[in-house]
Amino acid sequence: MQLKFTKMHGCGNDYIYFNCLEEELPNPEDLAITLSDRHFGIGGDGIVLICKSDIADAKMRMFNMDGSEGKMCGNAIRCVGKYLYDHRIIHKEEILIDTLSGVKKLRLYIKDNLVDSVQVDMGRAEFAPHKIPVTLDGDKIINQETMIGDQSYHITCVSMGNPHCVVFMEDIEPIQIEELGPIFEHAPIFPERVNTEFIKVINENTLEMRVWERGSGETLACGTGACAAAVAAVENGFCKKGEDIKVKLLGGELIINYTDETVLMTGNAQKVFEGVIDIVDGGIKIAN
Amino acid sequence: MQLKFTKMHGCGNDYIYFNCLEEELPNPEDLAITLSDRHFGIGGDGIVLICKSDIADAKMRMFNMDGSEGKMCGNAIRCVGKYLYDHRIIHKEEILIDTLSGVKKLRLYIKDNLVDSVQVDMGRAEFAPHKIPVTLDGDKIINQETMIGDQSYHITCVSMGNPHCVVFMEDIEPIQIEELGPIFEHAPIFPERVNTEFIKVINENTLEMRVWERGSGETLACGTGACAAAVAAVENGFCKKGEDIKVKLLGGELIINYTDETVLMTGNAQKVFEGVIDIVDGGIKIAN
Repeated sequence: MQLKFTKMHGCGNDYIYFNCLEEELPNPEDLAITLSDRHFGIGGDGIVLICKSDIADAKMRMFNMDGSEGKMCGNAIRCVGKYLYDHRIIHKEEILIDTLSGVKKLRLYIKDNLVDSVQVDMGRAEFAPHKIPVTLDGDKIINQETMIGDQSYHITCVSMGNPHCVVFMEDIEPIQIEELGPIFEHAPIFPERVNTEFIKVINENTLEMRVWERGSGETLACGTGACAAAVAAVENGFCKKGEDIKVKLLGGELIINYTDETVLMTGNAQKVFEGVIDIVDGGIKIAN
Repeated sequence: MQLKFTKMHGCGNDYIYFNCLEEELPNPEDLAITLSDRHFGIGGDGIVLICKSDIADAKMRMFNMDGSEGKMCGNAIRCVGKYLYDHRIIHKEEILIDTLSGVKKLRLYIKDNLVDSVQVDMGRAEFAPHKIPVTLDGDKIINQETMIGDQSYHITCVSMGNPHCVVFMEDIEPIQIEELGPIFEHAPIFPERVNTEFIKVINENTLEMRVWERGSGETLACGTGACAAAVAAVENGFCKKGEDIKVKLLGGELIINYTDETVLMTGNAQKVFEGVIDIVDGGIKIAN
């Protein structure tokens, strides 16, 4: 069976996109494992299926490189918006995409008839410790001195649908994130583990960030992490509510705008190439 | 400018292949860097250009992911053979490919009208220490007890056009290759650094190998390394000259046959997918 696909990325977070509006993809769990392999497969952080939806313009299903189904990814959903518009499947600049985390609203920014960047409504930031979850007392954990491993850090905890711990630092380039990340991830105060953002404040509209994602390690970009970082920067008085905050990640830049109602995230969406692959039983056809 | 390419691998050693028989590829050095990137580009160990030759059936040019031009790669040249035959550019089973290391002879093994595996004549093994180079006395360095770092190892040194140091071990799975590899690579007795093969002898026709390549670290497969390992196994009395020796690598298996005249290597060549990418000035066209 021959499959067409498109390789796309947002801030270096790269997935293999399949148009499943007319046809189903067989065995997406197995295919995600086989195709994500960067030496023997196509290579990517996972696969994304663009499917029909009865309640939105399309439905995004995503499978990680270990075959598990993901709920939502802020970098991937921007590429879904670009795919739908650039392929002339939708013809408007405000669209709705259904995900396992609910229906998300996208605003497409067009240049030369193609999508250049996309704004995603990422929903409301949550602070209640049990929603994150973090086992510390209080209504909000903002700049709270806490022992993580055998050292003390000032941490800010935010949920963007998934748990984040934000730490502001003088400098983030020299940190040993391979050692530090797992200490935060597995700290007993985070019963569901945690994503940790290490942030340097450049000025009141610019942050620099490195992120350790639970289960993945350091990544080039984390959309919800950038949102959590901007939210935490406002709550700590470094930035202002309702203003655009640029978050510089290893893989690119995201613009975050945090209001009482929601968090808006704007970033690039890029097509890299289009391809065709022969598939048999969830694997790559060898005899080709 | 739109470029067609084919992604192929031999034992997991993966390159992006371009048919340059009719057209030249602009800026291959820059393209190798951009396209090899596994998140922002196509992803691969480098790019391979299949070009016209006046002295052989085709010429292989290869550029590593850092943009430097490579001389020869035993895993890539098998894929060049498959490309030429499967695309009906050549119609015979014995072909000659010109490389920066000279003209190499390939024998193609066909299954269902497509190339399944390829035998490459890798040339003669050299032992003279100055040809490797290794600064130890004697005609050959076979099973010689030598201090590497602060430990003693029994080493065998072979040149297959590039320098190899082979070490036989009881077990290779538990070795700390990230620490051990650089100690061998930068040992003062190897003035041009060295590729090191850590070998477990399974039986007289089977070796298991992990390889540390100078400048690259641990890799899934190294064709010349597998040759050097089989040659060293014969010289140490573990295997027999003129017999097929199976070398099991992290990325697959290679069959080596070592004679007085030459070293023959046989292994797989696999197409993964075909693609199309838009290029501007040695980079990927962003506004697409």
